[in-house]
Amino acid sequence: MNEGMLLILSAPSGCGKTTLLKRVMADLPGLVFSVSHTTRPPRPGEVNGRDYHFVERREFEAMRDRRPSGFLEWAEVHGNLYGTSREEVERLRAQGLDVVLDIDVQGAAQIRATWDPVTVFIAPPSLAELERRLRGRGTEAEETIALRLANGRREMETAGDYDYLVVNDVLDVAVDALRSIIVAERCRRRRMPSGEVVELEL
Amino acid sequence: MNEGMLLILSAPSGCGKTTLLKRVMADLPGLVFSVSHTTRPPRPGEVNGRDYHFVERREFEAMRDRRPSGFLEWAEVHGNLYGTSREEVERLRAQGLDVVLDIDVQGAAQIRATWDPVTVFIAPPSLAELERRLRGRGTEAEETIALRLANGRREMETAGDYDYLVVNDVLDVAVDALRSIIVAERCRRRRMPSGEVVELEL
Repeated sequence: MNEGMLLILSAPSGCGKTTLLKRVMADLPGLVFSVSHTTRPPRPGEVNGRDYHFVERREFEAMRDRRPSGFLEWAEVHGNLYGTSREEVERLRAQGLDVVLDIDVQGAAQIRATWDPVTVFIAPPSLAELERRLRGRGTEAEETIALRLANGRREMETAGDYDYLVVNDVLDVAVDALRSIIVAERCRRRRMPSGEVVELEL
Repeated sequence: MNEGMLLILSAPSGCGKTTLLKRVMADLPGLVFSVSHTTRPPRPGEVNGRDYHFVERREFEAMRDRRPSGFLEWAEVHGNLYGTSREEVERLRAQGLDVVLDIDVQGAAQIRATWDPVTVFIAPPSLAELERRLRGRGTEAEETIALRLANGRREMETAGDYDYLVVNDVLDVAVDALRSIIVAERCRRRRMPSGEVVELEL
């Protein structure tokens, strides 16, 4: 069995990445979400082990500082720690599953340095639209919105480092684009690194 | 407007490439077929200017020998000449259309040397299945079938040189794969060569 691919998705907060991912994963078999570890408190409705592994800062730091590190990548964002468990990712890919990582641009850069991921940046149609969506949530304080917007602007400057850019304007179009990227990359992966085609698949 | 991409599709005879292409093009706007020139006689049902530009050998050779050549690539296959008009491809791409070339492995290699095409190889599930399909047509002489099979085997050895491999086993699955490759490559092309994202699209 071929090892699954590592798919990195990054997007500024408010781009609808979570909705997009859920739609694509409901449609495509063989795709799994790697659940990140985080020290941030759960939001209403979030479930431990499904949305994140919610852990204490002490536990996160112990895992991070193990050698080799328990995390493929980790980052501090908005004052909270986030990390991707190496063990979980390796276990899933060995089963032939394509693993989706929902991580920020710092994490993507760390993984790109040593692994060979497929990277997708989800962008809003414009910064004005991003602001409208963030305010539309109605759950964030004004200074949180300002911080997310500033971060979003900075993150969008890194979009050119990603393999693919999906603009989330019309949701159905964005879902089709993300799904297509994964289907296409599976066709790419059928090729052997040597340039020869896998015998069994012909 | 961005220039359209150049998409090369190659497949051994009998792989269902034409059916695949028609299905995908009916579904995806912005995709056009570059009609090849050929010296082979039309088959029943084929229309000049739609399936091929059917030309005399003398006319083909004059176009080929112009400087610069009137063809992006040309080849002799099964004793007939086939070529892709440079003028037609350039005109279509300048309109922002993605141009599909249905050419053989020799032609693909010629174009890959000087252009930057997206290349897709369509393969049958197996050589046995290819043989079954070729015989199923019921229109070919035994020695034609033997020639096509030998060529098919040789062509499949070059599949590793292509960016993508689509195995045409279940038609709907292959249609989805080819369509996805095109949608995904459009997301890839949104990136500027400099690594920066096109301003207008954000």
